[in-house]
Amino acid sequence: MKKDLPAFGLSRKAQRTVPQAINYLLQVAIDHEDMISLAAGMVDEQTLPAPMLRRLSDKLLDDEHVGRKALQYGSTEGLLGLREALLEHVCGLEGMTAEQLSLSAANVVVSSGSQQILYILTDVLVDPGDVVITEWPSYFVYTGGLRSLGAEVHAIDMDADGMRVDRLAEVLADYRRSGQLHRVKMIYTCDYCQNPTGITLSGPRRRELLEVVRAYSTDRRICLVEDAAYRELMVEGDPPPSIKSGDTDNTLVALVQSFSKSFSPGMRAGYAVLPDDLVAPVLDQKGNHDFGSSNLIQNLLAELMASGEYPRHVAMLRRLYRAKRDAMLAALAEHLGDFEPEATAWTRPRGGLYVWLTLPERIDTGKSGELFAAALSAGVLYVPGEFCFGPDPRRQAPRNCMRLTFGTVPADAIDEGVRRLAGAIRQVAGRRQGVKAL
Amino acid sequence: MKKDLPAFGLSRKAQRTVPQAINYLLQVAIDHEDMISLAAGMVDEQTLPAPMLRRLSDKLLDDEHVGRKALQYGSTEGLLGLREALLEHVCGLEGMTAEQLSLSAANVVVSSGSQQILYILTDVLVDPGDVVITEWPSYFVYTGGLRSLGAEVHAIDMDADGMRVDRLAEVLADYRRSGQLHRVKMIYTCDYCQNPTGITLSGPRRRELLEVVRAYSTDRRICLVEDAAYRELMVEGDPPPSIKSGDTDNTLVALVQSFSKSFSPGMRAGYAVLPDDLVAPVLDQKGNHDFGSSNLIQNLLAELMASGEYPRHVAMLRRLYRAKRDAMLAALAEHLGDFEPEATAWTRPRGGLYVWLTLPERIDTGKSGELFAAALSAGVLYVPGEFCFGPDPRRQAPRNCMRLTFGTVPADAIDEGVRRLAGAIRQVAGRRQGVKAL
Repeated sequence: MKKDLPAFGLSRKAQRTVPQAINYLLQVAIDHEDMISLAAGMVDEQTLPAPMLRRLSDKLLDDEHVGRKALQYGSTEGLLGLREALLEHVCGLEGMTAEQLSLSAANVVVSSGSQQILYILTDVLVDPGDVVITEWPSYFVYTGGLRSLGAEVHAIDMDADGMRVDRLAEVLADYRRSGQLHRVKMIYTCDYCQNPTGITLSGPRRRELLEVVRAYSTDRRICLVEDAAYRELMVEGDPPPSIKSGDTDNTLVALVQSFSKSFSPGMRAGYAVLPDDLVAPVLDQKGNHDFGSSNLIQNLLAELMASGEYPRHVAMLRRLYRAKRDAMLAALAEHLGDFEPEATAWTRPRGGLYVWLTLPERIDTGKSGELFAAALSAGVLYVPGEFCFGPDPRRQAPRNCMRLTFGTVPADAIDEGVRRLAGAIRQVAGRRQGVKAL
Repeated sequence: MKKDLPAFGLSRKAQRTVPQAINYLLQVAIDHEDMISLAAGMVDEQTLPAPMLRRLSDKLLDDEHVGRKALQYGSTEGLLGLREALLEHVCGLEGMTAEQLSLSAANVVVSSGSQQILYILTDVLVDPGDVVITEWPSYFVYTGGLRSLGAEVHAIDMDADGMRVDRLAEVLADYRRSGQLHRVKMIYTCDYCQNPTGITLSGPRRRELLEVVRAYSTDRRICLVEDAAYRELMVEGDPPPSIKSGDTDNTLVALVQSFSKSFSPGMRAGYAVLPDDLVAPVLDQKGNHDFGSSNLIQNLLAELMASGEYPRHVAMLRRLYRAKRDAMLAALAEHLGDFEPEATAWTRPRGGLYVWLTLPERIDTGKSGELFAAALSAGVLYVPGEFCFGPDPRRQAPRNCMRLTFGTVPADAIDEGVRRLAGAIRQVAGRRQGVKAL
């Protein structure tokens, strides 16, 4: 019977959608259990607060009346008590009052991970063919969504201070000159310890970026999406103020944060602080997606925020990840410090989970390249840099980069992982050198 | 500063999206706390299993290793152990083996409530202008999503046996004749105790429906979406087999079920059993939405399915809702049995949560009509029937129907709620009669 039927007619969006690159890596990881993974962008499993969650859950469910409320439907925007606590938390991070930021709990939307709110924000702003500006490289799950939505991605180079805002201004000036500025709907930045580079946007750049967005919000208002997922995992120096903190009339910046890195990704909870005009469109869309994220999860998070345990937990995470970051940087210095230093470099992130490694151009880090296979044979997994460059039609992704993470790997395996990786790099580089010499 | 900025440029989808009608009712309910609500499609709060969930959660989190796994990222398709349990559960309901149904756990996708999987299924199949066939009336949250996605809704009349499959066949024949059959992507049916009418599709109609879908799957394969959200709440007679159970080669029917009615809506968990060809497109899309529903929630549900407590809980719900349904039918007979019987009728659902009441045509049940206001004054809330008719451009929604639910209202308030409603109806009818007489 099956063979007589024609295919389902997939929508254009479904046809544009490709599997997340990360699925491939997850499968590789499953197939090679003994591998040291410097790839998976997960948090350190040892930090996941099972006992704390048991206390929170017992407290919530012990009062049967309260417990039942948590098991009933919630609202699309999310639990009011949680949204109030999140606003207070964000204000605390900014060192500003809600009034100074022109915010109330009505600007806070709870979502199923920050991914959901990033996706919905984009979906309410972007039609196929509209332009979304990202960093180069950028967070690949987000850029996968952009491809699916048919956005035209325009990527802006980064340096050690983050997105090159001067380049952004040039690009926007070009759109204005050609009468195309109305197509630019969003600018997306992961501005704290960026995924994948680990780079943090500098203080001056933050102010410049906001000014550029304001200056070019003439045809349409351009939404600046500030993905601050790694903000609370900054371990070195004071974290710079969010871009949002400069948007004191709450008109331009959608600030997106998450519990996935600072507490537990298994909760699947994120949130956004939105300009007034975006709240209703986002909620209408979310109403169609799921009419609200899990009320039980939200009640547990409200208990967490009320308990005072969250800041202590985050402080513990910072100590741990700082040590792991230091271990990775030390291992890179030890095992790759003398490797073709004029063409080899890595970032020194102020926190987060990632280091970005650039190798000599002749070394292909791609999943079909020699190095990836050699690394697998050596027992180490990394994220090929090619996955991290969005679909910008104007440029070709460099093939000589990779993302390394010190998130999941146990602290005492970091050195061994980097040692294996360095061995694979030297092996492939030698072979390539030979090829070149021939 | 604010007033100098132009508006954000919302996407065409955002412009098509309207707030869920139900938000209006929720607000009315909040504003009138003392109201008896025969409107809210929620489950009876007294049944929500807080103590059971506390046991499941303690069991899960007591083993720190297991607990941590539950707090880590999961996969986009959902926890394998849960998907296996759900497949077994569905097979149990069908009284068939997975092999007989050509199914494996790979066909099961876990979602954030059944709404999310309904939305994603539609999103991967439907472009703006494509046709989706629904019942008339239909589930309004779903039809809200259809409007947002730009689908052209073609609604098919129902009778006491559910969707008029003969009419469906005529409609499909028309599309074929006019060369437009390729535009028909999906047929959506809520076939057990439908929301909003409470009607269950009869056994013979189920077989006919599947045959019609197969017969017209010539240009494209048409997906039959079987929303079985209320299946486990059928209380009278044996529930008919699912349409899915006839789709033994697993090619045409996407069966969608939910824990929201049979366990807890606050978990936000639903699932679908999909034809092979739809699994990857749905997962790719869900990857962009949220890369997987809460792993913690899924682990709790896996504990639930393993505990053996679920069938006992559902049996308890059936007893309770049966009594409440009987109370509502008795109250309608008592308070409206003699009210213009030639033009007044209500359904006698075999379970679920809803009764559909049709009044004489001169009585406008709309939210701006006299009756809604009179009912509010009398202290009772219902869902105006107008909310339940999708945006079919070919026809006008009747204005003389309403959805009543015995879900949330306490059993001992059902009679009083219906008494108040009947009073409001008689009051408005008398006035209208007067108007007519003049």
